Amino acid sequence: MPRTPSRIMTVAAAQMGPIARDESRQAVVARLIDMLRQAKDRGADLVVYPELCLTTFFPRWMMEDQDEVDSWFERTMPNPAVNPLFEAARESEVGFCLGYAELAQEDGGTRRFNTAILVDKAGRVALKYRKVHLPGHAEPQEGRKFQHLEKRYFEPGNLGFPVRRVMDANMGLCICNDRRWPETYRVMGLQDVEMVLCGYNTPTDHVQDPAINRLSDFHNHLSMQAGAYQNATWVVGVAKGGVEEGSEMITHSAIFAPSGEIVAQAATMEDEVVTFACDLEMGRKYKETIFNFAAHREPDAYRLIVERKGAEPPAA
Amino acid sequence: MPRTPSRIMTVAAAQMGPIARDESRQAVVARLIDMLRQAKDRGADLVVYPELCLTTFFPRWMMEDQDEVDSWFERTMPNPAVNPLFEAARESEVGFCLGYAELAQEDGGTRRFNTAILVDKAGRVALKYRKVHLPGHAEPQEGRKFQHLEKRYFEPGNLGFPVRRVMDANMGLCICNDRRWPETYRVMGLQDVEMVLCGYNTPTDHVQDPAINRLSDFHNHLSMQAGAYQNATWVVGVAKGGVEEGSEMITHSAIFAPSGEIVAQAATMEDEVVTFACDLEMGRKYKETIFNFAAHREPDAYRLIVERKGAEPPAA
Repeated sequence: MPRTPSRIMTVAAAQMGPIARDESRQAVVARLIDMLRQAKDRGADLVVYPELCLTTFFPRWMMEDQDEVDSWFERTMPNPAVNPLFEAARESEVGFCLGYAELAQEDGGTRRFNTAILVDKAGRVALKYRKVHLPGHAEPQEGRKFQHLEKRYFEPGNLGFPVRRVMDANMGLCICNDRRWPETYRVMGLQDVEMVLCGYNTPTDHVQDPAINRLSDFHNHLSMQAGAYQNATWVVGVAKGGVEEGSEMITHSAIFAPSGEIVAQAATMEDEVVTFACDLEMGRKYKETIFNFAAHREPDAYRLIVERKGAEPPAA
Repeated sequence: MPRTPSRIMTVAAAQMGPIARDESRQAVVARLIDMLRQAKDRGADLVVYPELCLTTFFPRWMMEDQDEVDSWFERTMPNPAVNPLFEAARESEVGFCLGYAELAQEDGGTRRFNTAILVDKAGRVALKYRKVHLPGHAEPQEGRKFQHLEKRYFEPGNLGFPVRRVMDANMGLCICNDRRWPETYRVMGLQDVEMVLCGYNTPTDHVQDPAINRLSDFHNHLSMQAGAYQNATWVVGVAKGGVEEGSEMITHSAIFAPSGEIVAQAATMEDEVVTFACDLEMGRKYKETIFNFAAHREPDAYRLIVERKGAEPPAA
């Protein structure tokens, strides 16, 4: 039986192996362009790169010197180091999603965000997102081999979880730790999102507990599978992983169907391109039945989700 | 290495095979008591029975006669048919969770809910919950082998998702379709829930699409695994399943750890008791790190979850 009519977006998850501390942005961009060409050769419409993919994962180190911290940030996007990627993508007529550390002058001050942009096939920034759920801590913790200082170097994103019509699809972005929070997907699901792009850097020692850390890969997939299924959306999860400056980070980049199934998965801990022809209509049947939100959701019963931040136990 | 200090609640998932249409409540209660005794022999503190576990799953049939509909409901709880279960549990000092159709006189009218109660070891109803997410439809649909008329026979629950301290644990309840909705677990997670009990009746043809139905068991587990992990709570999922009056229903009752792992699972499509010694402290490490809600949640970014019921696509 031939397939029913569909809208196909062929997407490439462009996983990255480690980026060395002293690797230049120019060298990294050359790696990104190489993967873009592989993706194009496999028919990709869109290439998804990881979170903070222009440099090593610098929040693992405590830095007192603000100039040193700021050296990991981009003041403009694009900029001379990244222009070759924009040019290659425009020439190839391939869109891309890129994660980077953003230093912005905004509201009369200097602001720092963990940011991702979606660039369309014409090379225009069509969607920007700033990471809402910053993991880790603001002060260095003793006894850790590596710190996780995202709460020190960034502030929480101030753009919400926007969904935009880009390349004829309802597209949304999230970043790394966002993927563990069902609210992330739901806010986008309520905007009828059809594909969520999520880059990540996840050290296997981000919690100081081996009983949790041993499940890092399982939790990574579980979160994205559930987000995909419960919102009937494609999810593209892309790692920067492997052993980076001595820190072991998960890989297992994958593409998740609106059924929650993993339909493609990276096989290495290195730069690797995995592609899948995603039918953007696939989620429709779920959105019209089990996950017909208008028919089945009961927002009055959900008020605690916005009225309470932390957990509070019931009376004894 | 010995285990760290812990609070153990040994829980029994008491899965049920089919209940025939003409099976009396007395006969069903005898089955429940038999499983309670098996559970007690294995050291259980708590037995969890399925949704609507006193009768066959009647919402599969269109009934015009309200008296016939109401014959499937309980007007009081306990009542003479169910008293032997309450007595056996009290004698055994075992708590239990029971799902039933509740007919209540409330606010000056007759109300009908899909209800679950948690009864403590002294035989007191310590927690009541009425199903919030009613699946299916209110009018019979042509071309279906079986209807799914929960929206006709019940109204949505009006008690929210309460969490109560019962048997020295923070306990919450949900029912069947509730388990697919991340809001269910999150509202309880915000009340520091430690164990969620969820009975279900899930026909494999509840959606008229074989591409979705073939994944019924996967979606069942995926939803509960994610709910457990993302709220660091135990989840106990208990089926009434097998082929009931010609309708095929999923089984695979399971107990889910706060890690999201399946730690026990039924092996049959019949009455079957599965037990696990649940350490109620297990979720604590997650609640203090990755899922420290007070440190990491950003409720301002979640407002759409309560402000919007149905999905609305972005502007083109």
